[in-house]
Amino acid sequence: MCGIFAYCSYLQERDRKYITDVLTQGLSRLEYRGYDSAGIGIDGDEGEPFMLFKEVGKVAQLRKLISESKVDMTRSFVTQTSMAHTRWATHGQPSRGNCHPHRSDNKNEFIVVHNGIITNYKELKLVLEKRGYHFETETDTEAVAVLCKYVWDSQPTKRLTFTTLIKAVIKELEGSFAFLFKSVHFPSEIVLARRGSPLLIGVKTDKKLKVDFVDVEIAPDSDKLDLLNRETASMLSVPAASNSNIRRTQSRAFLSDDGMPQPIEFFIASDASAVVEHTKRVLYLEDDDIAHIADGELHIHRLRKDDGMSSVRAIETLEIELAEIMKGQFDHFMQKEIYEQPESVVNTMRGRVNFDTRTINLGGLKSYLNVIRRCRRICFIACGTSYHSCVATRAIFEELTEVPINVELASDFLDRRCPIFRDDVCVFVSQSGETADTILSMRYCLERGALCLGVVNTVGSTISRESHCGVHINAGPEIGVASTKAYTSQYIALIMMAVQFSDDRLSKQERRRSIIDGLHDLPSQISRVLKQDKALQQLARDTLAKEKSLLIMGRGYQFATCLEGALKIKEVAYCHCEGILAGELKHGPLALIDEHLPVILIMTQDSLYPKVQSALQQVKARKGQPIVICNDDDDGFSADDRLIRVPKTVDCLQGLVNIIPLQLLSYHLAVMNGVDVDFPRNLAKSVTTE
Amino acid sequence: MCGIFAYCSYLQERDRKYITDVLTQGLSRLEYRGYDSAGIGIDGDEGEPFMLFKEVGKVAQLRKLISESKVDMTRSFVTQTSMAHTRWATHGQPSRGNCHPHRSDNKNEFIVVHNGIITNYKELKLVLEKRGYHFETETDTEAVAVLCKYVWDSQPTKRLTFTTLIKAVIKELEGSFAFLFKSVHFPSEIVLARRGSPLLIGVKTDKKLKVDFVDVEIAPDSDKLDLLNRETASMLSVPAASNSNIRRTQSRAFLSDDGMPQPIEFFIASDASAVVEHTKRVLYLEDDDIAHIADGELHIHRLRKDDGMSSVRAIETLEIELAEIMKGQFDHFMQKEIYEQPESVVNTMRGRVNFDTRTINLGGLKSYLNVIRRCRRICFIACGTSYHSCVATRAIFEELTEVPINVELASDFLDRRCPIFRDDVCVFVSQSGETADTILSMRYCLERGALCLGVVNTVGSTISRESHCGVHINAGPEIGVASTKAYTSQYIALIMMAVQFSDDRLSKQERRRSIIDGLHDLPSQISRVLKQDKALQQLARDTLAKEKSLLIMGRGYQFATCLEGALKIKEVAYCHCEGILAGELKHGPLALIDEHLPVILIMTQDSLYPKVQSALQQVKARKGQPIVICNDDDDGFSADDRLIRVPKTVDCLQGLVNIIPLQLLSYHLAVMNGVDVDFPRNLAKSVTTE
Repeated sequence: MCGIFAYCSYLQERDRKYITDVLTQGLSRLEYRGYDSAGIGIDGDEGEPFMLFKEVGKVAQLRKLISESKVDMTRSFVTQTSMAHTRWATHGQPSRGNCHPHRSDNKNEFIVVHNGIITNYKELKLVLEKRGYHFETETDTEAVAVLCKYVWDSQPTKRLTFTTLIKAVIKELEGSFAFLFKSVHFPSEIVLARRGSPLLIGVKTDKKLKVDFVDVEIAPDSDKLDLLNRETASMLSVPAASNSNIRRTQSRAFLSDDGMPQPIEFFIASDASAVVEHTKRVLYLEDDDIAHIADGELHIHRLRKDDGMSSVRAIETLEIELAEIMKGQFDHFMQKEIYEQPESVVNTMRGRVNFDTRTINLGGLKSYLNVIRRCRRICFIACGTSYHSCVATRAIFEELTEVPINVELASDFLDRRCPIFRDDVCVFVSQSGETADTILSMRYCLERGALCLGVVNTVGSTISRESHCGVHINAGPEIGVASTKAYTSQYIALIMMAVQFSDDRLSKQERRRSIIDGLHDLPSQISRVLKQDKALQQLARDTLAKEKSLLIMGRGYQFATCLEGALKIKEVAYCHCEGILAGELKHGPLALIDEHLPVILIMTQDSLYPKVQSALQQVKARKGQPIVICNDDDDGFSADDRLIRVPKTVDCLQGLVNIIPLQLLSYHLAVMNGVDVDFPRNLAKSVTTE
Repeated sequence: MCGIFAYCSYLQERDRKYITDVLTQGLSRLEYRGYDSAGIGIDGDEGEPFMLFKEVGKVAQLRKLISESKVDMTRSFVTQTSMAHTRWATHGQPSRGNCHPHRSDNKNEFIVVHNGIITNYKELKLVLEKRGYHFETETDTEAVAVLCKYVWDSQPTKRLTFTTLIKAVIKELEGSFAFLFKSVHFPSEIVLARRGSPLLIGVKTDKKLKVDFVDVEIAPDSDKLDLLNRETASMLSVPAASNSNIRRTQSRAFLSDDGMPQPIEFFIASDASAVVEHTKRVLYLEDDDIAHIADGELHIHRLRKDDGMSSVRAIETLEIELAEIMKGQFDHFMQKEIYEQPESVVNTMRGRVNFDTRTINLGGLKSYLNVIRRCRRICFIACGTSYHSCVATRAIFEELTEVPINVELASDFLDRRCPIFRDDVCVFVSQSGETADTILSMRYCLERGALCLGVVNTVGSTISRESHCGVHINAGPEIGVASTKAYTSQYIALIMMAVQFSDDRLSKQERRRSIIDGLHDLPSQISRVLKQDKALQQLARDTLAKEKSLLIMGRGYQFATCLEGALKIKEVAYCHCEGILAGELKHGPLALIDEHLPVILIMTQDSLYPKVQSALQQVKARKGQPIVICNDDDDGFSADDRLIRVPKTVDCLQGLVNIIPLQLLSYHLAVMNGVDVDFPRNLAKSVTTE
C-alpha cells in the first residue's frame, strides 16, 4: 500500500539537489499508493554516512522540509544510492517517527524502506529487545532494520556480503513485503527483496555503450549459468573491469565493447509510473528475488537454492507515456479519468469488437475457448470496484452461457477456503494486477487446477504474468485512488468475454448482436452524460453537499451500479453512502426512509422497471424525496421530481451509462467538502497487502 | 404486507359491540404485518347497509374512533359478516381516505379489503373512468371495488351469483393479492380470493353438532365431486336444510345428525395468530381459490375449471398457544424474543441432536439424503434476516460438504433468472414461509426440476407445503418485526443440515463432533451474554444513542453477524448502520474512518483473528475508537478499550453468540430513540408481496 522509490547512479556525477529532486518526484508519482507521510534516505557528509528526511503529510511537505534544511545541496556524488518512501499507515499513526526509512540504531548502520506487513514483527522485537537492542517506533519495519544490525553484529569476522546478510534476515520474516536496504558497511550498494509486494527496476544507460539488457537472448546462456552456483547467478551485469569474475564474463550479452566501466543509473519503484520519465526499460522482480546493485551492476539472487525458479528476469519496455499520467487540463486525475471514458471504453474494445460483422474476438482467450465452454462453473474473484464490475456482468454471463456463476470478494473467498475444482474457470479482476487478496486467491485456484483468467489494466503485473490467459482492459494508467475509467473498461471487458464465451450458441445470436450494437453507441452516450456535468454539480451543491448519509437503490443490472456509486461517494466524499438492492427494501432498509434521508433511485427502463416503480411509490409514500436516474424519454414523472436523465441502451450495458452521473456526483461532493480528491484519506490506489 | 381479518357469524346472536371488538382484537394480532392505518366494514342499519370506520395510525386509534362514534353499539345480529384491515402503505400515503375497506361508490355497493399489489390498476382505472366511474383514493384496491360494480352494472338480469361475479373480476387482475368482498346485493355473504398473499379460514362450531371438517376422509369423495361441475364443487358445507342441493348431500361427511342448520362462526385472517384465540381448526386457501361463505356454509371454488388442482383443502389443527404470542413480563415482543433464545435454540435442536452419541438426525430430510449428497451444487435463497443466516453458514457447508455453495437474495435471484439445474439442491429459508420473493424463487426452481428444501418457522405455510422436504426451526411464533430468535434458530437448523449432509464422511467426523459439543453449550452461553444486558444498555446510552451512522465490521464467519447486526439497527433504531467485510476496508470504507464515526468490530478468536487485529490497528491508526466484541479470555486489550465480552465457542457457531449483544444494542437504541420497537415504521413482519 505504500510506495517505494530508489535512485542509484554510477559514474554519473549528480549533486544533492538533483538527487533529492529525483527522489521526491518519484514519490509524488507514487503518492496515489498512500500518502500519509513520506521520507528519504540519502548519502551524507563526513561523519554522517546517511541523512534521513521525514515528514507527515504529502510529498510537498517533505520537499518543504528538505528545502528549509541547512544541508549543502550543491555537494556532488560520482556514485551514490538513495531511497525514498511514501507511507500509508498500517501499524502506528502517521508521525515523523513512524515514517520510513527506518534505521537500525541512532548511527544509521542499516536503513530500510518497506511496503507490506511483517506479521511476526512482535516476536522479532521481543527477541531483539532481550538481546539489548533498542526500538524507537511502533512500526513493524523497524524490527527488520534492527534485525539487520543483529545479524551483522553477531558475526565477528565481518565477511558477510550484503546479499548474504539480507538473505539471512529475510528468512526470518513472515508476511508480505518489498524492501530496500542500505548500510554504512556497504557504501553505495543497495539490496532489494520482494515477497508479495511489487517491485521493479528501471535501467538507464548510454546507448553508445552497446550494452543491452536483452531478455530472450540471455536464455541460451542460462544453461551455463546453471553450472555455477545458481543461488548467486547473475542475470544482468554491466561489468566493472576491476572485479569482473567468471560469473560475469560468462554473461557475455552484457559486456560492453571495450569491457570498461560505463555510467549507468537504476530507478527502483513499486510501479512503473515513477520510472517511466527516466527510462522505459524495466525488469520486474519475482517473489523471493533478492537483487543487489553495486558498482553499476545488478545481480539477481534467489532466496533459496534450487527452488526451481529461474533467476532470469525479462527486461520489458514500458508502453505508457508520462503524458498519459499527467492531469492535463483537469483539476484532478479522478476528473480527468471520468472524462476519458468515452475514449478509454473505445480503447478497451479496439481490435476486439468488429461492429460490421458484429463479432467479438479476444485474442488472449482464443486458445482456451474450448476449455472454457466445457467448464462446470465460472467464479469471479475480485475486490472493491473490480468486484462491482463482476456483479454488474454476472447476469449477462448467466444468460448467455447458462453456466452457474459465482462472484466472490477475494478476502472472503480466502477466509472461507471456498471449494474449487479442476473444471472451474476462475476470473480474477484487478486494475493494478497487484491486489494482494486477488493474487492469493489466484494462487489458491491455480493449486487446485482451475483455469485462471486475469482481467487487468497493468501489463506485466503479477496477475497478468501468473494467470493462464486473460484480457488487458487497456484503459490506460489510472492515477486517481477512486477507480472510474477502470470500472467501465473492466465492465466492457467482461461483457466481451460473455459474448465470446457464448458465440457458439445460435439461440443467443440476436442477443449478442444487440449487445454489440449497444457497445457501438456507448462512447457517444457516455459523452452525452458528461455534458450534464454542470447540472450535476448544481444538484450536488443544492441537495447532497451537507449530507452525512445517503442510500442508492436499484435492482437487477443496476444493483452493481448502486454498490459502485456508493463506494465512490464513500471513498472521496467521506459520506456514509450505501448501495441497497431495491428488492430488499421491505426487509429492513425501508425503516430508514423519511423526509430527511437522501435517496438516489436508479430507474432506467428494463424488464424490472415496474418493480422499481413500485419501490419509488414506497419511498414516496414515506415522504422520501428521491433523486431518480431515469431514461431520456421516460415521461412518467412530474415537474417537481428531481431527475438525472441518461440515454437508454441495452439492459446489460445500461450500468455503464448510469455510473457516470454517480462518478461525477461523488467527484463534486468531494471537491465541495474540501477533499483532496485524488488522495482521499486512509486509502491507497493499489492494495498490495492482505 | 397488510393484515386482513373477517368475522362471520351464523345463527349466533352477536351485538355490534361484540362484533367490533372481535374485529379490532383480530387486527391488533395482525398489527405486526403493517400498521400505518386500519379500518373495518360492518353491517349497518336501515338505509345504510354497511358502515365503514377508518383511522390513520395503529388499531388503538381505530378503537377510539369507534367508541366515540354515535352508532348504536347494542344492536344485535343473528347472522352477519364483517371485515377489517390493517394497512401498510404501498400506494398512496397513510390517510383515512387511503385506508381499507375500499368501496365501489358512495353507496358502498361493494366493499373490499386487500393485501398485496394490483400491478395493472392504472389501466383498469383508466378504462373505468372512461365509462364514467368515479374514484376517491390513490389506491390500487379501489379500482377492484369499482370493477365489481362495473361487472354488476353491466349485466342487466342481475342473475350473477356473488362467486361468479368475483371470478369475473379476479380474471381481470394482475399482481398478487388476498381479497375479501362484501356487497349490498348479497347481504351476509362474503367472498374470499387469493393469489400470492396468504389467507386462512378458522371454523368454530358447537361440538354437539357432530359436524367435522375431515380432510383425509373427504378425499374418497372427490371422485364423486368431479362428476359435478368441478368449478363450483364444494369442499366444506355445513348444510342449511332450506337449500341443500345435490352437491351438498354428496358431501356426506359434513351433514349434521339431523340435517338442521346449526350456529357456526368463521374467522378469516392473513395468518393464524389472529384466529387461534377463537378456534384452532383452520383451512389454508391456495392460490386461485375463491371461497364463498353464505348461510353458514363454506364453499371453495377454483378460478378456472380443470386446472388440475383439487379443490379439497385440509383442515389443520393449530398447535400454537395464544399465550405464546403474548408478551409476558417483557416490554416488547422483540425483547421477549431476544430473551427466549436460550430456550428457542433448544427447541430447534430438540429430538434432532443426540449429544450422547454426538449425532444429528433431521427427520424431514432423511429420505432425501442420498439425493442431496449427490447434488452438484447447493443454492440458498432467502431475503433479509433469513438471507443472513445462509451467509453465516455458507462456509461450514463448504467445509463439510465440499460442494459449491451459492447464497442468493431471492429478489435478485428472480431478477437475474439464475440458471438452475436438475442436480441442484435449493434451500429456501423464511421465518413465515410466506415471503413472496422466496416462494416465487422456489416455484422457479421446482419448475426446473431442482430438489427444493424449506427451512421455515411456520407449519402449514406455503413454503412448508410446496417444498419437497425441509426443516421446521421450531422457534415458536415470532411477533416482533425485527427477527431475533428466528435468526438463531435458522442458523442452527442450517448448521444441523450441514452436519447431517456430511455425516457419511469419516474425515469430517472430528469436526462434526466438535460442532455438536459446541451446540450443547450454546444455550448457557447465550444466557451468559444476556446477563450483560444492563451494561449493554449503558453502552448504548453512552456511546451510540445520538449517532446517525454506524459501521459494524468483521470477516469470515462474522461477516454475516455484521450484516445481521446492521440490519437490526437499521430496522428498529433508524440509524444508518452498515455491515462491512473487514477484508474490504482498504478498498474504500476506510476513507470514512475518523475520530467521529462510531465503529463496532467483531474480533472473536478464530483462525482469522490476526487479520482482524490488523483491521483494528488500521482503524485505530486513523483515530477511530471502535467498540470491540471479543472473547472472555482475550487479554490483548488495554484498559481504555471499549469491549463487549462473549464466551468462546466453535468458530462456525460463534456468530450465534456474537449476534446477541448486537440484538440487545439495537433494542436499547430503539427504546432510547422512542421507537415503538415491535412496530418499526414502514416495515411489516412478513413480506408477502414482491
